[in-house]
Amino acid sequence: MSTNAASTPSTTREWQLAARPAGWPTDDDFRLVERELPELAPGEVRVRNTYMSVDPYMRGRMNDVKSYTPPFRLDEAMTGGAVGEVVASRSDDLAVGDTVLHFQGWRTLAQGKAADFHRVPDVPGVPESVFLHALGMTGLTAYVGLLDIAEFREGDTVFVSGAAGAVGTMVGQIARLKGAGRVIGSAGSPAKVELLTERYGYDAAFDYKDGDVAEQLAQAAPEGIDVYFDNVGGDHLEAALRSFNKGGRAALCGMISMYNATEPEPAPHNLFMAIGKGLTLRGFIVGNHYDRFDAFAAEVGAWLATGELVYDETVVDGIEQARDAFLDMLRGANVGKMLVRVG
Amino acid sequence: MSTNAASTPSTTREWQLAARPAGWPTDDDFRLVERELPELAPGEVRVRNTYMSVDPYMRGRMNDVKSYTPPFRLDEAMTGGAVGEVVASRSDDLAVGDTVLHFQGWRTLAQGKAADFHRVPDVPGVPESVFLHALGMTGLTAYVGLLDIAEFREGDTVFVSGAAGAVGTMVGQIARLKGAGRVIGSAGSPAKVELLTERYGYDAAFDYKDGDVAEQLAQAAPEGIDVYFDNVGGDHLEAALRSFNKGGRAALCGMISMYNATEPEPAPHNLFMAIGKGLTLRGFIVGNHYDRFDAFAAEVGAWLATGELVYDETVVDGIEQARDAFLDMLRGANVGKMLVRVG
Repeated sequence: MSTNAASTPSTTREWQLAARPAGWPTDDDFRLVERELPELAPGEVRVRNTYMSVDPYMRGRMNDVKSYTPPFRLDEAMTGGAVGEVVASRSDDLAVGDTVLHFQGWRTLAQGKAADFHRVPDVPGVPESVFLHALGMTGLTAYVGLLDIAEFREGDTVFVSGAAGAVGTMVGQIARLKGAGRVIGSAGSPAKVELLTERYGYDAAFDYKDGDVAEQLAQAAPEGIDVYFDNVGGDHLEAALRSFNKGGRAALCGMISMYNATEPEPAPHNLFMAIGKGLTLRGFIVGNHYDRFDAFAAEVGAWLATGELVYDETVVDGIEQARDAFLDMLRGANVGKMLVRVG
Repeated sequence: MSTNAASTPSTTREWQLAARPAGWPTDDDFRLVERELPELAPGEVRVRNTYMSVDPYMRGRMNDVKSYTPPFRLDEAMTGGAVGEVVASRSDDLAVGDTVLHFQGWRTLAQGKAADFHRVPDVPGVPESVFLHALGMTGLTAYVGLLDIAEFREGDTVFVSGAAGAVGTMVGQIARLKGAGRVIGSAGSPAKVELLTERYGYDAAFDYKDGDVAEQLAQAAPEGIDVYFDNVGGDHLEAALRSFNKGGRAALCGMISMYNATEPEPAPHNLFMAIGKGLTLRGFIVGNHYDRFDAFAAEVGAWLATGELVYDETVVDGIEQARDAFLDMLRGANVGKMLVRVG
């Protein structure tokens, strides 16, 4: 289906990286610019963004270091997850009015090959913003990490670090809904710990700042753990190795250690326990597991529609607020997923 | 089939642990005693040992520390791999004359339930001693670790640490015979390094004492590695994490770090690389994989019969030499597998 692009908006407002932050980012490291989009080429679409995501990993991309995602380029629009509505199309695959998920966040209008934009399914009771977290990469990370990477089985005792984060809250709930024997989470404040047990279906939770992580985990899981979903590394991974039952499995997601890519992650000094216990530690990044998206969306979408799976959002209005929303998110000002409602 | 035990030898000579060694074992930590065996109970067999194994892991069992195998008890016969011939049987499962593999080493006569003694298959050209290494637990460790734990695939580049050891020489040869793209080993002397490439089918080998392990590995494997068979841990594991290609797999066998169970293994500071590269690290002990013995024995037995797979033995004569053979083995006096020909 083809549309006359002339009748659609063509001026995008976009956030560029003006300078690489040294330590904490300052306002001057970013600039909001207006730019005229070129005409649509054959096979391309133009999308008016409705929501964009601000995520911790983006801080890492502001550094010029090699990581599993390339750094942002200076003086170009930053990128990130976004959802929007197709406003012009020269592709047979997408039509005007389609709601699509894509990676051209940090701007009001996105444009490119139709193949880079993914039509989102219509899930009753699920607003489109949810495709940026519970039904998006965040949720897929939790789903793939728990079920495929850690090979979760019904009855398993599951431990999740960074459990109050966007991924961790999903992991706990999916484990619960899939029949976990016991779900244990760690987080960094009493309020988060309470949320874990009161809202996100965790059986037990502890504040890692309250004492030795290994001892707190051993108390919360007196019969050991079978699965560990690692968002943290370091002392949490050591604690998990100590508490693992035979045949235990860890999914290494470990984003927190990746954000400050200049410092190597503290090493687990008891990795040798993996031998006698026959443990499996497996790292992953969600980008290699998009083939699981449909299965994930069907299963998690159904839980969202019935309200069996819950989430929180903190929404900030306006593209001009995106920088502050990002910085606030880094400071922990959000409850649940931090989003910017664009335009 | 039943036999009159009265006509068979009934006095065993056995090595007992007299004291737990502090550091390097001394002669006084062991004693050789004579003991009269009780009459055979129903279901039991008596076996005249022909060969017994002395292995590094036995040093660990002399300490009173929790490990994946329990410590030897004081003033009792030590145990370990052995082969022998059934000389009396009150079981229908084993007959006099059968050659059996079992764990009552360190003695001339073994006795117990028939279920604890395993008849070894007749492999043309393969003497029974080989069931104590290439066709025994050593070989099974190499086979299971490479094929099942590290999920070796044809064309993989394989790196083996401790490559000149009993397990390592098997891993390299099995990888070669299974179609590895390239097989790389590390060892601790120029002579061992030469053996790896000249006798055991390694494409490249280096002496880890010659310089930085990570740099030597990177030079030996300029296109990266797909599989790492870890007998060492520490700097070798760090080097492997650095050289791994995406989707790489490590089998953590790591016996060397287990022998001195009082010192934790040096921790790999780059474990976070497992995330971006999607690596799998899996520990194992061979005792959980006996179900693979038949497949292993069939495949490796055929290679041994044709001479495609080679091994070395250092054989010492006489049960009274077992202690010295064990200590010599710890000092590295043996070429290939160290064995005692009993009685």
